[in-house]
Amino acid sequence: MDAAPILANVRRLIDLQPDEEQAFLALLQPRQARRKALLLEAGGTCTESLFVVEGCLRSFTVDADGAEHVLSFAPPGWWMADLYSLVSGRAALLNIQALEDTQMWVLSRPDQETLFAQVPKFERFFRILVERSLVSYQQRLLDQTTLPAEERYQKFCSYYPSLVHTLPQKQIASFIGVTPEFFSKMRSALLRRD
Amino acid sequence: MDAAPILANVRRLIDLQPDEEQAFLALLQPRQARRKALLLEAGGTCTESLFVVEGCLRSFTVDADGAEHVLSFAPPGWWMADLYSLVSGRAALLNIQALEDTQMWVLSRPDQETLFAQVPKFERFFRILVERSLVSYQQRLLDQTTLPAEERYQKFCSYYPSLVHTLPQKQIASFIGVTPEFFSKMRSALLRRD
Repeated sequence: MDAAPILANVRRLIDLQPDEEQAFLALLQPRQARRKALLLEAGGTCTESLFVVEGCLRSFTVDADGAEHVLSFAPPGWWMADLYSLVSGRAALLNIQALEDTQMWVLSRPDQETLFAQVPKFERFFRILVERSLVSYQQRLLDQTTLPAEERYQKFCSYYPSLVHTLPQKQIASFIGVTPEFFSKMRSALLRRD
Repeated sequence: MDAAPILANVRRLIDLQPDEEQAFLALLQPRQARRKALLLEAGGTCTESLFVVEGCLRSFTVDADGAEHVLSFAPPGWWMADLYSLVSGRAALLNIQALEDTQMWVLSRPDQETLFAQVPKFERFFRILVERSLVSYQQRLLDQTTLPAEERYQKFCSYYPSLVHTLPQKQIASFIGVTPEFFSKMRSALLRRD
């Protein structure tokens, strides 16, 4: 599998010497998942971070009434994990599923710790990655209570531009926190207006 | 000002040698803020992280209608910043205000970068701090759409136990995303039930 996308992803934030690059690549495992495959189930333990090369993953929870709530998507170039479980070793809160046939690089938590020991600047890489992710979740939490659904949809479009026309509408509706019916009406109204 | 709380906070996650401890403390500035003092205004630039020793800070936004929305609190032992602005150098989205007379240690972003260069294991400290914070925001975002206000209040109580009886009710109401009137009724019902 192609290592160029994950190396480009890392190099956006830290410089890598050839030996550091080799140490990193030696710790990655390639993996394929079929569309709809469940890569992590809530209640299980998340032991790895996934970097998407092709395809798309989503993370979601299922509430007491059986309804799904999408937390995030990972198109190519994005990382995905249940960070709570990964960090604490406790039961995962999230399900992670492939929305399409997906190719990814897998970095297990033990291998990530090995990486930190061998190439400490990866602490910096993951710190910045997590900082950026934290900022986006803070903003989404505020948006959820302060912005109308239409503006939350526009933010989704700028956050995940590659997904606007490829994802099933019900997945986007769940991400922005509205019913598929409401989303469909809102989107029609937006398209008429454009 | 007492350095013991911030050293204890750091030592929960990384070991410090005496010289590393000195390098860290040399980069901290003590600061006092009066109750209601605004430490950061949305639109300004956040250039520092604040560690609360005594008192309490809150971060909040003001929406188009002038209503305040609390994002987070920082009682003693907690860190506070507008991470978006701190990391990007762009205009802050949050306001940060002292809810009581507050004593804190200040670590400026340039000093934090100096710290990372002098004592690289602080990359690890802040990575883990941000990871934990990210996990809590992911969970709050899901809670906001899946849990009733009563359960969100119970989560607030376990997340910030020291604040349950000390914060003004309208601050807690804003944090869990309900009106002060609704919160007051809900809390009375909970107290009657106990």
